[in-house]
Amino acid sequence: MSHSIRKIAVIGTGAVGGLYGALLAKSGLDVSFVMRSGLEHCRKFGFQIQSIWGDFTSQNISYLSSTKEISDDTDLILIAIKSTENFNLTSILNPLHNKKISILLIQNGISQELLLHALLPHAKIFGGLAFLCSVKLGPGRIHHLDYGDLTIAESQKNEKSMGISEELLAIEKIFKSAQVPIQLEEDLILARWKKLVWNIPFNGLSVLLNAKTNELMEKKSSLQLIRGLMEEVQTAAKMEGKKIEDDFLEERIRRTALMKPYPTSMKLDYENGRKMELNSIYHSVFQRAKNSNCSLPRIQFLANALEYLEEMNCNHE
Amino acid sequence: MSHSIRKIAVIGTGAVGGLYGALLAKSGLDVSFVMRSGLEHCRKFGFQIQSIWGDFTSQNISYLSSTKEISDDTDLILIAIKSTENFNLTSILNPLHNKKISILLIQNGISQELLLHALLPHAKIFGGLAFLCSVKLGPGRIHHLDYGDLTIAESQKNEKSMGISEELLAIEKIFKSAQVPIQLEEDLILARWKKLVWNIPFNGLSVLLNAKTNELMEKKSSLQLIRGLMEEVQTAAKMEGKKIEDDFLEERIRRTALMKPYPTSMKLDYENGRKMELNSIYHSVFQRAKNSNCSLPRIQFLANALEYLEEMNCNHE
Repeated sequence: MSHSIRKIAVIGTGAVGGLYGALLAKSGLDVSFVMRSGLEHCRKFGFQIQSIWGDFTSQNISYLSSTKEISDDTDLILIAIKSTENFNLTSILNPLHNKKISILLIQNGISQELLLHALLPHAKIFGGLAFLCSVKLGPGRIHHLDYGDLTIAESQKNEKSMGISEELLAIEKIFKSAQVPIQLEEDLILARWKKLVWNIPFNGLSVLLNAKTNELMEKKSSLQLIRGLMEEVQTAAKMEGKKIEDDFLEERIRRTALMKPYPTSMKLDYENGRKMELNSIYHSVFQRAKNSNCSLPRIQFLANALEYLEEMNCNHE
Repeated sequence: MSHSIRKIAVIGTGAVGGLYGALLAKSGLDVSFVMRSGLEHCRKFGFQIQSIWGDFTSQNISYLSSTKEISDDTDLILIAIKSTENFNLTSILNPLHNKKISILLIQNGISQELLLHALLPHAKIFGGLAFLCSVKLGPGRIHHLDYGDLTIAESQKNEKSMGISEELLAIEKIFKSAQVPIQLEEDLILARWKKLVWNIPFNGLSVLLNAKTNELMEKKSSLQLIRGLMEEVQTAAKMEGKKIEDDFLEERIRRTALMKPYPTSMKLDYENGRKMELNSIYHSVFQRAKNSNCSLPRIQFLANALEYLEEMNCNHE
């Protein structure tokens, strides 16, 4: 990647990748969407975004049917498939195996970049965390309901902090040009743990207790659950040398109280019979905790309960 | 209490007290039921039992409207109100405060006998644990669907084992005469902990995961939850010097697998908008664990989740 990004490809053009990709195309970048289905529809009608930032239809996106078609002069590949589909990455990324490319993976959870490093040994890998309320309405149609902030950081195979590189600044620049609120972090793993401080309690409890975020904030019992889970995330991070302050936990709680009533993405997945992101958000956390000899009984309990509910919710796509 | 029991009173004539009281009346004992409502109905039509042990209608029960009416020559008072109603015991038992009486409290949970010792300082207190599937259909109408075993032990204020007294044998005798399978235990608190090994996981999880016992037995995820909770009960008991063997836990699991599909009493309570027995089954366990400096994160998690569901289930009687 040169330090100026002109051409990007997007793999995973749903609620997250579709929105950011269309915003980047609107800002003037050369954008290709890799899509398994709906290409003809999108070529004909463009990509329609209904957004709190303004509605628009992108007519200048190219549509590709495979990663094989991604041209060699692409500066950045944005991957935003759901983490439940990560088992497909091996075949999706196979055509890129030997290439010196740059990848930005926008997903919840932790540890997924290790898979990318393994699949793409010559690539530069960046991780992104989206704080976004957005849904896919149909082929080429996204409804962006709230928020939209993106946090990005560079990933290293050894998971150490990479600081702020020129390449990271170049990625920041394209999102800034597209009017996306963006924040840089020096330490991707710390940033992922910090995101999990929110995702681990709110995603899981919203499903288990059939509750929106505001309902979980209203009761002493659920606040006790939230705090207990947050503290375990804090402990697990600490065992890896990633320090999260107590204040950070309380600030997350305060901010959530100010949010609009909102079903989490995991609750929407569950209600629609889709697979929940249990692997990236819960199981990867245990795997890491196991490696650092750390016991997480509350997170384990919540994860087992969600596994049970998912097994019983047999309506998977 | 003389060592021969002829006359008993029953407080709490629902699915448990109504069944055992009617069986004792049928066996020839002089039985009075203390009832707040439905007296006239029962006086007219008797107490109807539909039971796996044979259907019958008891016509020889007396009906009292208050504990004040319990005659002084009563040998044993059986208390089988739901533990969620225990806050009423102070006023219910007030007329008996100075009497030298014998009480058998049949309830789930732990610690309730301490309340009885406080309210009735001159009484002998016995605790009973029913393993019973039975429902109240209406005034004076009980449907006994399955099981029916009773375990009894004597209670001491200091919660030490009392061994098997003459009085305990006398209670055993009346239940044996009424064909109720009965078992004596030397240590009431150990017996209560052992019952909790089952109640803590199965009652709570059946509500939280909307599952019957057989469904909970079928999945690896729920079995992991069950075992984790059972082990915490075992630990809490151990902290009080009450030893429960690992084999006991596994045997409970094996036995449950052989049970008929069965919604727990807590699930029925929840579904019918009644209060769940959270105090006697969960909160009393924390209180005890706190006293012995024992952390129970899984039980705490389950209890908080149940509290939240109960608060949201606003249809309480």
